[in-house]
Formats: sequence, C-alpha cells, structure tokens
Amino acid sequence: MVSVLKLRAKLLGFATGGMGIVVLDDSIAKRLGVHPLDRVKIKYNGKEVLAIVNVAKKLSSNKIDEVALYDEVVKALDVKEGDIVEVEPVEPPKSIAYIRSKLREERLGPEEIREIIKDIVRGALNEVEIAALVTTLHHQGLSIEEAYYFTLAMVETGERLRLNKKPILDKHSLGGIPGDKTTILIVPIIASLGYIIPKTSSRAITSPAGTADRFEVLAPVDLSVEEMEEVVEKAGGCIVWGGALRLAPADDIIIRVEYPLAIDPFFIPSIMAKKAAVGSTHVVIDIPVGRDAKVSTLAQGERLAKDFIELGSRLGMHVEVALTSGDQPIGYAVGPALEAREALKTISGDGPGDLVNKATRLAGLLLGMVGNKNGEAIAREALRLGKAEKKLREIIEAQGGDPKVRPEDIPIGEYTEVIKAKRKGRVLYINNRAIAQIARAAGAPRDKGAGILLRVKLGDVVDEGDPLMEIYAEKGYKLELALKLAEELMPIIVGKRHEIMVLKHIPAVPRPGLPELER
Amino acid sequence: MVSVLKLRAKLLGFATGGMGIVVLDDSIAKRLGVHPLDRVKIKYNGKEVLAIVNVAKKLSSNKIDEVALYDEVVKALDVKEGDIVEVEPVEPPKSIAYIRSKLREERLGPEEIREIIKDIVRGALNEVEIAALVTTLHHQGLSIEEAYYFTLAMVETGERLRLNKKPILDKHSLGGIPGDKTTILIVPIIASLGYIIPKTSSRAITSPAGTADRFEVLAPVDLSVEEMEEVVEKAGGCIVWGGALRLAPADDIIIRVEYPLAIDPFFIPSIMAKKAAVGSTHVVIDIPVGRDAKVSTLAQGERLAKDFIELGSRLGMHVEVALTSGDQPIGYAVGPALEAREALKTISGDGPGDLVNKATRLAGLLLGMVGNKNGEAIAREALRLGKAEKKLREIIEAQGGDPKVRPEDIPIGEYTEVIKAKRKGRVLYINNRAIAQIARAAGAPRDKGAGILLRVKLGDVVDEGDPLMEIYAEKGYKLELALKLAEELMPIIVGKRHEIMVLKHIPAVPRPGLPELER
Repeated sequence: MVSVLKLRAKLLGFATGGMGIVVLDDSIAKRLGVHPLDRVKIKYNGKEVLAIVNVAKKLSSNKIDEVALYDEVVKALDVKEGDIVEVEPVEPPKSIAYIRSKLREERLGPEEIREIIKDIVRGALNEVEIAALVTTLHHQGLSIEEAYYFTLAMVETGERLRLNKKPILDKHSLGGIPGDKTTILIVPIIASLGYIIPKTSSRAITSPAGTADRFEVLAPVDLSVEEMEEVVEKAGGCIVWGGALRLAPADDIIIRVEYPLAIDPFFIPSIMAKKAAVGSTHVVIDIPVGRDAKVSTLAQGERLAKDFIELGSRLGMHVEVALTSGDQPIGYAVGPALEAREALKTISGDGPGDLVNKATRLAGLLLGMVGNKNGEAIAREALRLGKAEKKLREIIEAQGGDPKVRPEDIPIGEYTEVIKAKRKGRVLYINNRAIAQIARAAGAPRDKGAGILLRVKLGDVVDEGDPLMEIYAEKGYKLELALKLAEELMPIIVGKRHEIMVLKHIPAVPRPGLPELER
Repeated sequence: MVSVLKLRAKLLGFATGGMGIVVLDDSIAKRLGVHPLDRVKIKYNGKEVLAIVNVAKKLSSNKIDEVALYDEVVKALDVKEGDIVEVEPVEPPKSIAYIRSKLREERLGPEEIREIIKDIVRGALNEVEIAALVTTLHHQGLSIEEAYYFTLAMVETGERLRLNKKPILDKHSLGGIPGDKTTILIVPIIASLGYIIPKTSSRAITSPAGTADRFEVLAPVDLSVEEMEEVVEKAGGCIVWGGALRLAPADDIIIRVEYPLAIDPFFIPSIMAKKAAVGSTHVVIDIPVGRDAKVSTLAQGERLAKDFIELGSRLGMHVEVALTSGDQPIGYAVGPALEAREALKTISGDGPGDLVNKATRLAGLLLGMVGNKNGEAIAREALRLGKAEKKLREIIEAQGGDPKVRPEDIPIGEYTEVIKAKRKGRVLYINNRAIAQIARAAGAPRDKGAGILLRVKLGDVVDEGDPLMEIYAEKGYKLELALKLAEELMPIIVGKRHEIMVLKHIPAVPRPGLPELER
C-alpha cells in the first residue's frame, strides 16, 4: 500500500447530483489499499476534496494511471482533462464507528449523532453505511433523546428561515389521503388573521399530487429561502416546495435510501426538523386515520401523537395533533389541476363540506393554540367574509402567480371518461390507494391536468348507471391505461349495508419444498 | 412517465467488476419514472440485459438523449458508441418485497430466500438493499431453517466441484490468529493417507497473510474449478484461492457490503456453503479462542460450535469443532514468505511444537471422523516418516510450483530490525492484533517477504536486551513505519507474573453538551 498516488484526471462529464465520487482502476485501488465505497482525498493545485471510491476494472486502456472524476470533484478542484491530481486514502470518518456501535445496539449520544448527520450532509458516508444506519434504527427505534438530537443535528446542518417574528404557526399532514388540498385553505385563513405561516410542502412521490404540485398550478413554488422570506414578509404566509431549500438536507439524503426499503425511522425527526428550520413555534400535525391511510387505528395515531408532542416540547415548540378521517379522498378532486380548481372554488365559498370542515377545524386548532377562543368559528368567518380568498390571491401574487386566476381558467385534461355504477345501492367503500393508482395511471402528478373527479362520496345513494367518478387525462393512451386499471381495481364499492364482509381474499400460494442438495 | 425510451449509447470504457450499471440523466430518469438504484432493462439488437440505474446531472452537454453504459452492459449487448438502445423501467424484483418483509420482522421461507440469493447473484439487488438485508439479519439473527436455506441457495447459485468421490475431508479456521499456517500441514497429512481434501482458502483482508497468500509463495493458487479438480484427482488435495472460483458467489457480493459495516450475519452459512460447494462430507472447524481472537471465551465458542454442527447435519455433513488456543501467533513466523519457510521446515520435521500439535490434532480429528482410531498418532507418523512432505511437494508440483523448493530458497525482506526486551522477566502477553498491524505496516501481505519473526513465545524468560522479535520488510520506509508502530503498540509484554493487571486504560472523553437551538 502507498500513501499517495499521482494520477491523470479523466473527466466523466457528469455529476452524481449528490456526493462526490471518483472511479479508480482495481489495480490502483489495491495499490492505495482502498476498497469500493472507501473515501479518498483528491488534491490539485492547492485545493482538496473528499470523494467516495468506485472501483472499476480496466479503467485505462493504455498504460497511464488514471482517476475518473464526477463533476462534483471536477468543480471543487477546478481540474481539466489530463491534469495530474494526487489521490490519498483517508481514515474512515468517526461517524462510521458510531454507526457500528449502533449496530451493536449501543445508544448514541449528542456528539455521535451530530457527527453522523454532519458526515451525511458533507457526503462522507456512503449509501451502504446510511442504509445500515436506517435499518438498525428501524429495528431498535429512536429514544426520545436520540430523536431530539437527530432533529437538532438536521436543523444545524441546513438552511434556516430567519423571520425574527413570533409566533410562527405551521401545519403538517402525514398525508396518504388523495385530494387533500386542506393546506391551500389553512395557510390563507391563518395569514388573513395576521399570523405568520411559512409553509413548506412536498411533491408527490407515490401519490397523484403533493401540496407543492397542487399549488404550482396557481403559482411558482420553487423558491429560494430568501424569496420565501420575502413572500412571508409581504403576505404573512406562503406555500413553497421544501425540496430544494436545503432545510434539514440530511433528510433529503436519508430519504433516498429509505424510499426503496419502505422504512422510515427518521419519520418524526424529519418532519420536526423542517418545522424547526423555519422557526415554527406552534404546529398542528394532521394524522389521517383509515383503512388505507398510513395510520389505520386511533390507538396507533394516539401513540404517534404523543411522540410528536413530546419531541416538540423538547424543541420548545407547541405541538398539537388532530387525528382526522382518512376513509376517503378529501373533497371530490384528485390530481394537481382538478384540486387547484376545487381549492379556489372552496375558498370563494363554494366547496365540499368535508374539505371546509377539515380546513376550518385545523385552522381553528392553530388559532386556539395562540390564544383565540372559538378558533374554528374565527376561521369560518375568515372564509365567509372573503378574507381568506383575498389573502390566497395575495400569496399567489407574491409567489409570482396570477392573482386573478379563476377556477375555470385552469386547464384540465381533455380526455375524460365517466365510470358508472353497475348496480344500485349505497357507496360503502372508496379505496384510497386504488384512487391514487388510477389518477397516476392517468398521468398525475406529471400531467397537471390529469386526475379523478369523484361524483360520489361515502354513504351516497346511487342508481345503476349513475356516475361514480370521472377520469381526466392529457393523453389518450393514459386515459386508456387508467380506465383499464379502474376496471381492475374497482375503487368504489356500491352495495347494501353490511352486505360486503370479505374485503380481500388472500389465496394460498403453493410453496414447493426445496430438494436437498444432490451429492 | 413513459414506458420506454430510445437513447444514444455513451460508452464509459470501464467495468464495475460486479453488477451492470447504467447512468441516466436526471431528466431522462424522471421521464422514465425511475429513481437512483432502480432497475431498467436495456435492449439492443435482439439482446437485453438488466442494469441498476445511477442518476447523474447534465449527462449530455448537447441536446442528444444519452445513456452511459458500464462495460458489463456493453459486453452483454455488444453495443458500440452512438448506437441507439432502448431503456425500459422494470418492476422491482420480488426479492425486494421479501427483504421488506424481513424488515417487518417476518420469517423468510425457502422460496423467498432462494429468490433473494438468486437476485443478489444476478446483480438485481443494489447495495442499499443488500445492506438493509445484512443489517436486519444482524439484528434478528438467522433461525436454523433460514441459515439452512441461505446455505442451500448460495450453493445452488454457484459453481460446484464434482469429484464423485467419498468421503471428502475438509477443514476451516475462523482465523484471526497471526501466523496460522496449519492448513499447509493438514492438507498434505490427510492426502498422504489416501483421503481427498480439496481445500479452498482466502487471502488476507485485515491480516498479514491468508492461507492463499502463504501458499502462493510455494505454488500458484489462482486455479479454476477445472484445474482444482485436476490437481485433486492427481494429488488427492490442493490449497487454492477460493475467491475467484465462484463457489457460493453470493457470499462474495454480500461480503463487499458487510466489510465496511463490520457485521457478518451470514458468517456460518457462508463458510458452510463453500464447504458444500466442494462436496465436503467431513469437516473440522477450528475456532481459535483468546483475548484478541474473534471468539474470546470458551462458552461463546461452544455456542458457535453447536450452530456449525447442527447446520452441517442438516446439510448431510459430519462437522466437528475444535476450540483452539488463540492467545499468541502459531509458530514464530508471520507474513507470507516467512510462514511458507516455517511450514516447509515443519513438514520436514524441524518445526515449533505448537504448530505441530495443532496440525496433528486437527488432522487427527478428521481421521477419527472417517473411522481411524488414534488419528493424531497416525498424523504424527505421516509427518515423521516424510509422507506428508512428499505429498506437499506433489501438491506444489500439481499446482504449478517448484516441488524441490527449500526453505532458504524463499526470498524474504532484506530490511530487518530486531526489537529487544527493555527489562528482564517472563513473556506475559503477546498482542495478536498489534503483531498483525506491525506486519502489515512492514508490507505484508502485498510484499510477500515482509513480516515478523518472533524470537519468544508466551512464558519464555528473557534478559534485558534479549531479542523479542525481528521485523522484515522489502522496503526501507516500510521497515521504519513498522518500527514506529512497534514502539507505539508494544506487542510483547515482559514482566513478573501477576504484575500487570491493568490491560488498557480508557480515559474519560469530555463530551460537550449541545446547546438548544437559538431562536
């Protein structure tokens, strides 16, 4: 093993978009004594940068010793094709030892947690190490202290919103319910009453629309922290995409690993870190409860609520939780443009009862937390008097949208088809997951105009042939895909009460025994 | 999202050496609806191959939609720079669902295990998924059934040695003890008595020499399965490097992830799969027990022994275990060439007692397992009569080495320095880990002639200034490094009995409290 090698830089011409990576030939990696995913220091012209090692076979067809560089490394060093750079193995960061001790089921202290999060953010931990951390925390759980220190570390390693105002109100929904455009009502209601509510939202990952996707139909959501501060200074509230703000950026990196594994031990710290990063002092957390929601029982929701409240209290944040009905979509519209239309209609006084109820109840809770009695009534009044609509249009304008936009101005998919009831009866069951899948098949969230407009809600009585829902798509073939899926999934079940008892049948899968090894 | 894209192939010109990878531009990944580490199918000219997605920013500087291909993909498709290939997202393999269910602490059945191992071998699981599997199994442990089915699946997905003979004897050491050249004695002893012993060995990862490194000084070890079969047909035994044989190749992939995490839940299945793959029927497992060994107590060793024996019995393999003394290096030599010299001397009758004892006891156990009474005496006799030496030279010749090699023919490092006792007394403690680190600093295993020759063993009485050990290096600066480390680590402790009670002092680390977030 050698302590340093001089290698010819080969520029790959693209970036990882995350951590800095260099590719070393197998033989050179052996000479340096480094393994794939180890770290090296790359030095050039007085500059140096840390990078993760990828090992390749036959990197150089000629006899010259090369190192291939991703753009992140090229930019950090300002190096050109053919320049000679120095590559030096470095000790693994201390945080790996901390991850290993967590693997041995030891507890992590504040300093260990801080180091781990710092190293995740600066790209010093590779995906295998982050996956091991996430998996071990999934099994062992986070103590309240660990959750607290992870939250702190996530905030400290990211951008912060500096509003110098108090109180700062905020809300967050655990999501999972299609058509939940409640935020587009709550933010202007709260801001219209003179309170600050700097809301960051996410885009859809597996759903037909995130709040950022919905609101993007009305105004740009891709703001910088400075622009966000400006909008909030001006309008008191905003609805922006949180993804590019680098508030708690550790979370964005961790999620890339969690997503394929479908586990999320940082669930609560991630949410709370984003709230702490914008300086929130009063937060209402909406936990939808329902058969197809993320939380399926009230008991489960209550346990989760306690964790949010306790972590909030450690962070000096007043947190309250609402367990909400998650049995069916909120309102009738699912998909960015259809939902933006419905939100606009609702804020101007012409909206579905469940949406109005949810928005005003949650806004009311927030208002109560900052000392208002009858918060819900105040919220309803803000809606009724048009104060909330006026505020919404102010926010739209401040973010760069058209403040005069009318619901009918918003383009929706021109390919549509109505799904009709095949029998008379009562709407007994609406399958949220199936609704989401069908809306996605129709093109949502990428095709903003795609989605579903429900014509019925739970408990409605229908005749055979009555419309149950309408699918919207921007492209004919996507409408076909969505229709096929709707036929298959049967998302809305109509029948007599108590008639349908078996919800799903899991057939036995014949499992062939494995033969012994033949010898 | 689209179902397929035609993209221009950009050849990266190097291979991963493992799974097939393609690099897509961020925007193209979005259009395909794939995320980093997802899988795609690449099609070209009637051929198709599965690859893992890496996502890069600004892959194409021009306007052409490209996909960058690693050599594995290029070769599978026989594609040239600029050819148009089709890229199609594919459903994640079923094995991911099985890993997710293991993350939910469900048990894995035979079919699930088989799918997981198959997908690991065909490169369909990415490192994040494998890391999660390894971590979750580390926490939950493997039931004996799971261990059995993992072993079977590892064997089934790899190469097999087909000797059509019985019994097939084998041995394995858990390792961790420097200087353990026992295998170089056992294999010829057993083979000289007419038994078959097709031994595969590993190279050093963190130690100064693996058996493959040691034996490579005497003969090539980098054989194919066919060559290995030939050698065993001819000589009855062999000592070859197992790393390139693709016996249980799943293990080789899993180890790449386990190594940086320092966890190894597949420990027993990995070992047993390699034994099953060569068709072993009678196996002795050597578990060194000692303060610095992998297993530090007899009780721990006994638990492990039971697991080996039970898994062996399920596989139709007769397994016995020896817990051996792991308190100090075996013999006096540490480092490939020095150890090869010592092994040659020992097999010709002039070797240290502990090495002879260990080799003949373990060989004796194997001989006992196939029906010989007084196995150890038979083994000693094979040594004493020169049968073992004759057989060793046959094996060396069959593998392509020089059968006439003498110990003094083997080149060793020309830079040497003796470490001397600083006081008189008895050798109370030899630190295996420190010995290994110093030998590695001197250049082992890469520099074959580097290493350590002990001049004392535990219990020896020395005067001040007596030699304790000699360091060998092929390069002057490495000798300096090793000397510095020896000074620092003090690997051999000399004193009066019962005098040294504190083995290590762990100082208190002042841990600063984290401040609350300022607001």
